[in-house]
Parts: sequence; structure tokens; C-alpha cells
Amino acid sequence: MRFELITLGTSGAIPSPGRLCASQLLCLENRDFLIDCGEGCQIRLQQYGGGYSRIDHIFISHLHGDHFYGLPGLLTSWALNGRTQPITIYSPPGLERLLATWLSFSPPWPYPVAFRTLSPTSGRSAVWSDEEVEIFTFALHHGIPTNGYLFWERRRPATIIPERIAEYRIPFEMIPAIKAGGNFTTDEGLTVAHADLTHPAPPPRGFAYCSDTRYLPALADIVAGVDLLYHEATFLHDLLDNAERTLHSTAREAALLAKAAQAKRLVLGHYSSRYPDPRPLELEARAFFAHTDAANDGDHFCVPFQGRRLTIHT
Amino acid sequence: MRFELITLGTSGAIPSPGRLCASQLLCLENRDFLIDCGEGCQIRLQQYGGGYSRIDHIFISHLHGDHFYGLPGLLTSWALNGRTQPITIYSPPGLERLLATWLSFSPPWPYPVAFRTLSPTSGRSAVWSDEEVEIFTFALHHGIPTNGYLFWERRRPATIIPERIAEYRIPFEMIPAIKAGGNFTTDEGLTVAHADLTHPAPPPRGFAYCSDTRYLPALADIVAGVDLLYHEATFLHDLLDNAERTLHSTAREAALLAKAAQAKRLVLGHYSSRYPDPRPLELEARAFFAHTDAANDGDHFCVPFQGRRLTIHT
Repeated sequence: MRFELITLGTSGAIPSPGRLCASQLLCLENRDFLIDCGEGCQIRLQQYGGGYSRIDHIFISHLHGDHFYGLPGLLTSWALNGRTQPITIYSPPGLERLLATWLSFSPPWPYPVAFRTLSPTSGRSAVWSDEEVEIFTFALHHGIPTNGYLFWERRRPATIIPERIAEYRIPFEMIPAIKAGGNFTTDEGLTVAHADLTHPAPPPRGFAYCSDTRYLPALADIVAGVDLLYHEATFLHDLLDNAERTLHSTAREAALLAKAAQAKRLVLGHYSSRYPDPRPLELEARAFFAHTDAANDGDHFCVPFQGRRLTIHT
Repeated sequence: MRFELITLGTSGAIPSPGRLCASQLLCLENRDFLIDCGEGCQIRLQQYGGGYSRIDHIFISHLHGDHFYGLPGLLTSWALNGRTQPITIYSPPGLERLLATWLSFSPPWPYPVAFRTLSPTSGRSAVWSDEEVEIFTFALHHGIPTNGYLFWERRRPATIIPERIAEYRIPFEMIPAIKAGGNFTTDEGLTVAHADLTHPAPPPRGFAYCSDTRYLPALADIVAGVDLLYHEATFLHDLLDNAERTLHSTAREAALLAKAAQAKRLVLGHYSSRYPDPRPLELEARAFFAHTDAANDGDHFCVPFQGRRLTIHT
């Protein structure tokens, strides 16, 4: 299954040359999840893919403009393009009222829009799931209600070893039970263990989105073991005072969280406009967590099943 | 005096590759007037100039999203950048209420924002003026209240011919009166006419903004004689039915208006996304009005004093 993050916008509060405000697309097989929707998100979707019809869920972290000012334009363009598919928008409280005023000047939407208000307190709370993925939210610390999001693949069934089917003359109709964990007993009364009949499925892959937030060491438990951790890195650590005052994080802090969480890979973004080139932030983080990349707009982070290397297309 | 139009966004309702939604900057000497503010306007201002501090007036044509969804981001970025200069926003009714809801989620603005509601009926109505420019608004026809805008330079005084000062021994203190239209009488009683003492000032330059609108032949009187006429051209004339149904104009109609108004130059924009290349629209218009250019994002249309050729930097 495809498991790929596209960083659509990597700037902090103000767009900067070549960088738009926060927006990401998590592509899981045939479904794309849009996470935050800064101004110009629809333009980046045109540029970097993420077909409109693949997006049924939008996750807004918080109601600072750089994380949702692209919503009216995106929703309006969908309407103009004749979208009929429903969309669900998840966010902290207030977004529905805000968008209702905004869109009262437009013709009625030709597609249903559902709002779900999420106010996580401690730990992680389930938001949505299907047979392929489970999505959770958790509280960040940014002065106004701010949600992180966590995506975990469902555990997949084991795959049966083809040679065993012939060897033990396993009837076709028993295969699903074996893949689901069952043993098999032959006509001769020999019981063959599940583990001897199957290859284990690769472990589920996970992605966590943490923007914007003051450094929260306790997040490590919530996002533990994710393959890809996106964490904001608004400042270098020499501007820790700024980070504390504005409730943001430094690149070093993002790296410390990735390390504590035993994430496989860390992706940085949401850079202050004082850093036109984010490589110093990347370097700072790599000193504490080697597998760090400072994202640019349009980067694709492809997460393979565990054991294979993550690939990045820029 | 500099008199230059920068077309920041030339797409119609939906942004298309390389084209953002409606937004223009009219640069008159030291002051920039922002006209419409589609999504991404602040990004285009970064790319194509128009220093934030030069903009004190924003003119919104109407409350369809593609003409104002860039306002919250622009106003917020100004706040984050520490703007203290007041701004005045002109628009049809409703914008103030809408922005108030939108921005109730942000910290208070650190600069004063004044809203002026304009509801022109017939002819043109004065909006604002100073010693250099007069600005008017007029009604367009687009299904919801929609305003066009008209900018005219003030008539400048004549310039005195330096040789005449010596020839007639004109005292320094009399020069302003002569420039303003007065004659001069020498000590010997000889009266020399204003026209013999001065070079006439070049005629004032004018710019008119007509977007979005159904073709309105009566506009020709209102925008008569402008140096630069921006008129939307959403469709080619073979889609006149679409233009009539959606209350837009065709390229041919824009050209007919430019011709009837005796404009010096016509600039087209607001293309339907079915035209990734607007040259067919330009060609159609040129058959009726030769001095037509289909604008792209970032084009600069420099209007010289009359008698010199208009220059375009793309």
C-alpha cells in the first residue's frame, strides 16, 4: 500500500519565496488526507498532485490563519468543479461558524460538508477509521486549542507461503482463517502452526503531525514508533526565547522528540521567515536525530514497509 | 510620474497553473493601489513588487471569493510584520461583517482598518482623491453588487519655458501663477500670453478596471479616453451563451468596449480555466481593437505620458 507524505506548504506564519503556509497531503493507497490548508493549498494540490476526488477528509490543526486560510478557496473551487462527494472537516471549535459566514456570500455548496469538532485532552482520541487506517488526535500546546493528528495503518493479515498449500494440501476455503492466525491440521492429524504456514505481515506504518506547538516531551508516548514524524521547527535553538514566547519549537527540540519517540524519520517544517534556507535547521536537528529532513514545498516522503529505506522525491 | 499596472492574478474563478485569481496593483509614483485580492495575492506581491508599505487603499470589486479570498492572509501578514499604517478597504456591502468574523480568531490588528461601502448606481461616483489622483467607482453587471474602478491623474500645471524667464525678466514669485494659467505683463506694458510662456502639461492618464461583468456598452462613456482599460474576457465569443448565463464577457466584447471608449490600450484577464493559453482571446480581441494584450501574472504595463508608446515588461 502506498504510504506517502507530500509537504504542500512549509513556511511558518507568513509565506516566503517558494514556500506557502502549512498544508500536507498524506496519501494512503487510494485515499488522500489533507492536513491543514494554508492559503494557496489548492494551487499546491494542482502542482503536486492529490486529485481533488481522492480527498474526503480534511484535518485542521488550529485556527491560526496560516493553517486554514486556504479552505474557502479550495471548497469553492470544488463547488465550481461540480464536486458532489461529501467532505468531512475536523478541527478545534469555531471553524464551522467561521466558514458559514464566509460562504454565506457564495451559492450553496453542491456537496455535503460535515464538521467535526475535536477537543482532545490527554492521550490520544480516535477520530476515524476504516479497514486500512486508524486516525487519532491529541492536544498540542500553542495558546489556542491545537490538535495533532496520528495515522496508523491497520495490522495486515499474514501472507500464506504458497509452497505450504501444496505440501499440506490445504483447502482453499481454509486459507483466510490461517492468514488471520489459525493453525492447520492435516487429514493425518498433524497440526502445523500458523507461524510455519505464513510470512508475517509487515508491521503497520504510522505518521504523526505536530504543528504548531511548544516542545512537549510527553508527546513521545503518543507518537511512539511512527515511521514518519512531522514536527514544526520554527526556530533554531539559539532563539529558544522566541520559541517559548510564541509557543513554537526549535529544530533541536523536534529532534529530541523524534529520538524519544523512536520515530524512524523526522520531517521539519513551519520555518520562521528569517530562514529562507532551512538547512541550518536540518543540521541542528541531525546532531540529535540523524534521520531528519527539512521539508520543502512539494517534497514527497515515501514510507516503505519497515525494513526498506524511506525515499524522498524533491 | 510613474503610472504602471501590475497584473498579479489573471485567472478566472479557479486558479490555474501559473495563474492566480484576480488581483492587480496600480502604481502611481509613490503609492500603490491594490485592486481585488484573490487567494495568493500576498505571494504575488512578494514576487512582483508592490511594497506593503506603499499600499494604503484596497479596492474590492465584488464578494465572489476569487476576488477577495486573499484579504485575510494579506491583512494578517501585515499585522505579523508590525504594520501600523492605516488601511482603507473599499467594497460593495458585506465585507466588513465577513472579515470581522474571520479575524475574530486572530489577535487584534495593530493597525487601523477602515471599511468604506460603495454602492454606485448610475454614472461614476467619486471615491477618493489627493493632489495627484482622483478615483471613481461605477456599477458593473454581475448578478451581485459589483463595482468597477476608475483612476484619473489630476491635470498637472503647465511647465514654464526657461528661456522666456530671461527674455521677459519674469520675477521668480510670479512663476506659479503663470504655470497655473496666467499671462504676464512686462514692465514695458507688453502682455505675453500663458501659451507663449509655457509648454502645456501632458494630458492626465487614466486607468479603468472592469471585472467581473456582463458586456455593458454604456460603460464606454464612463471610461472614455482612458490610457489603459482592463476588461475581463472570461470566454471566447463562440461561448457567448456561457458569458450571458454567468454574466461575464467575451474577448470580442471587451474589445468593442475599448473601441467605443477610445481607450488607448486594452488589457484582458480573468480567463476561464478552459484557456490555459490566453492568446486565442488576445487574437479575437485584436480583430476589433488592435491595441490589446492578454495579461499574464506578473506583467507590468507602464503607461507613459500620452504621445509615447506604452511599454510592457513580462
